[in-house]
Amino acid sequence: MNAEIIAIGSELLTPYRQDTNSLFLTERLNELGVEVHFKTVVGDSRSDLVAVARTAIARSDIVIFMGGLGPTEDDLTRECVAEALGVEIQRDPEVITELYKRFAERRLPMPENNSRQADVLEGAVLLKNANGTAPAQWLVTRYNDERRYVMLLPGPPNELKPLFDAECFPRLKEKLPPQFIAKRMLRVAMGESACDARIAPVYMKVPEVQTTILAHGGETQVHLQCRAASQEEAERRVAELSDRIEDELGDAVFSTGGETLEQIVGYYLQMRGATLAVAESCTGGMLAERLTSVSGSSRYFLGGSVVYSNELKTEFADVPPELIAEHGAVSRPVALALAKGIRERTNATFGIGITGVAGPTGGTPDKPVGLVFIGISTENETEAFERRFPGDRERIRLWASFTAMDLLRRKLM
Amino acid sequence: MNAEIIAIGSELLTPYRQDTNSLFLTERLNELGVEVHFKTVVGDSRSDLVAVARTAIARSDIVIFMGGLGPTEDDLTRECVAEALGVEIQRDPEVITELYKRFAERRLPMPENNSRQADVLEGAVLLKNANGTAPAQWLVTRYNDERRYVMLLPGPPNELKPLFDAECFPRLKEKLPPQFIAKRMLRVAMGESACDARIAPVYMKVPEVQTTILAHGGETQVHLQCRAASQEEAERRVAELSDRIEDELGDAVFSTGGETLEQIVGYYLQMRGATLAVAESCTGGMLAERLTSVSGSSRYFLGGSVVYSNELKTEFADVPPELIAEHGAVSRPVALALAKGIRERTNATFGIGITGVAGPTGGTPDKPVGLVFIGISTENETEAFERRFPGDRERIRLWASFTAMDLLRRKLM
Repeated sequence: MNAEIIAIGSELLTPYRQDTNSLFLTERLNELGVEVHFKTVVGDSRSDLVAVARTAIARSDIVIFMGGLGPTEDDLTRECVAEALGVEIQRDPEVITELYKRFAERRLPMPENNSRQADVLEGAVLLKNANGTAPAQWLVTRYNDERRYVMLLPGPPNELKPLFDAECFPRLKEKLPPQFIAKRMLRVAMGESACDARIAPVYMKVPEVQTTILAHGGETQVHLQCRAASQEEAERRVAELSDRIEDELGDAVFSTGGETLEQIVGYYLQMRGATLAVAESCTGGMLAERLTSVSGSSRYFLGGSVVYSNELKTEFADVPPELIAEHGAVSRPVALALAKGIRERTNATFGIGITGVAGPTGGTPDKPVGLVFIGISTENETEAFERRFPGDRERIRLWASFTAMDLLRRKLM
Repeated sequence: MNAEIIAIGSELLTPYRQDTNSLFLTERLNELGVEVHFKTVVGDSRSDLVAVARTAIARSDIVIFMGGLGPTEDDLTRECVAEALGVEIQRDPEVITELYKRFAERRLPMPENNSRQADVLEGAVLLKNANGTAPAQWLVTRYNDERRYVMLLPGPPNELKPLFDAECFPRLKEKLPPQFIAKRMLRVAMGESACDARIAPVYMKVPEVQTTILAHGGETQVHLQCRAASQEEAERRVAELSDRIEDELGDAVFSTGGETLEQIVGYYLQMRGATLAVAESCTGGMLAERLTSVSGSSRYFLGGSVVYSNELKTEFADVPPELIAEHGAVSRPVALALAKGIRERTNATFGIGITGVAGPTGGTPDKPVGLVFIGISTENETEAFERRFPGDRERIRLWASFTAMDLLRRKLM
């Protein structure tokens, strides 16, 4: 079984907006054992839309149309899909009554245009849209003796997602052969190509598990998916490959249950009853921001300081001015002093200090853009790590904050 | 003239990856007066790709293929497009030599597969790819006596973008009738629907300027675009509508030249020779992170403190513990004290303090999730503003940090 997803709306053909619903739909369809083999974006043009619908219905078992179900002249999905399928449109009196009622409640006359939302494709089932006025439609039809499942869904994600999950997913599941699919995601603190080079020999030997490697905000995600004759077998195969990959990557794997690095660090800190404070220069608050993105982080994260100026490095983290004068603000001694200073000032169990050159300006031959020192301080010792990150300001800050969390995680393990 | 953009690669049909190149290409094509009327994503399947290429060449003046130009068996773009166009493939000896040389330099044997990258469509011009091994191709051909511009571009954005700008854009520009297009973006500190309600009566009267309204990270962007008989006229029309919208929205418009709010605040601070420090509770460093996302922000941003725990509110921003005990950490008096305390501690010209309930837990009937107090302190006065933001933790923190910057901007104006 394969599927085609069609996003409708001229705004999706501008530089400003992009369909994202299709990622959600793909995930759900994959769970049903259905692969998406085409995605199309088409504007609010009658002939374009009819042509796209004709092509889709000829080649895809499942065709999902998104958008163009509103009341305006631009909303052509119903009539164009009907034309492509060669079915009639009927105006549903119940929907009309419902619409009139809704407008009457707000003491407004109903604009005639709104009746279009009651247009139903011959043979289609109307699906109630809890978050909007346009009902969705579900239609099982035939093309050259092959069965076709056609869905017309509203475009806004907050309408489409609950509607698909409540109405379309169960209907499809009932019609499709049962699927036994297992999935797992390993999150890895390692660059994408380094990670792939290490594990390719492992996963290449297990072609029955589909492996996708993806770089995402400093981490690498290894997605494993397997379809098998039973759920048990699918789970077993994914678990086996996951174990082998973990063996290969060791400590670099920080999560196999969906948790982020922020959550994992928080989890380890809580397990120990430990607390953390940070002093950031080049990351400018990004490390604190990431740590506090986790709800409940106040249980282990005390706070910290953004010590952009040299004076504040002294004021908020007790870095001796002489140290900065001697070694420069971006240096190993200052990273050590920041980590130790913030820990002592806040009485935290752990302290992290970051100083570096985020660029694009401010680099020197000695201290180039991307050079970052990260200090980690505990009651017993304070260490500093030197790193050199490639890329632009945003990427350097992202990697520096990610690496700081990862260094702490390794200390906590 | 219309264009069709085709992204090739099975990874773009998974839930994990999405084409984003098409947004860039759409922007550039729009500058040439070309509208995109279809976007398609297709996997690494020979028959699917040939079918998509045939359809595209039949209906679009400009067809851009992205991806599938590498050396592996999966890289089918060259041969499939050739088949769809009915042209031969020739292996370019110069490219072969170049490839052999590159491998020889690294003292590696060249895998036979790599020769595929030297396959050139009959009549096509090879375009040098400075950031990768696969050269792009440019082909002018005909379909039923209509001219077609066909481009084969590499998929990675860092290869595609410079290549398109250097090689394809100028070639297209030369072939297409000259266009006179003016654009402007107004950035507005106001919700999307409130903004639209205010300015719809204004822009509806000016249909010759295309107006697009878009919510983006706390701000609303109003994109204006006009095509006219001369550049002067296009500029004039956009400027006129922009002025009328600015009159309507007043101070809420913070930028018309592309600058972010972070940049505008920095610009105002620098103009005054002023400095800023912040003390953040619920935003957890996000405000500092945003302010320091601007290169050169060290000229006016001193730093600040992330005062997640009550103790740190006292330690780093001199908030009296009694004040917290009496009013609670999330309160107007504490926001005032944070702003004043951090300003005095750092000797900054301006101080900002933020305290609130980011959720999802921690809300009470009295102090619900989304309640945020923002304090702004200057030498002469300290004020606090109460806001109630809807949405999840991420959105509340985003809006709180955005609003804090906007409140400071209004004070600086």
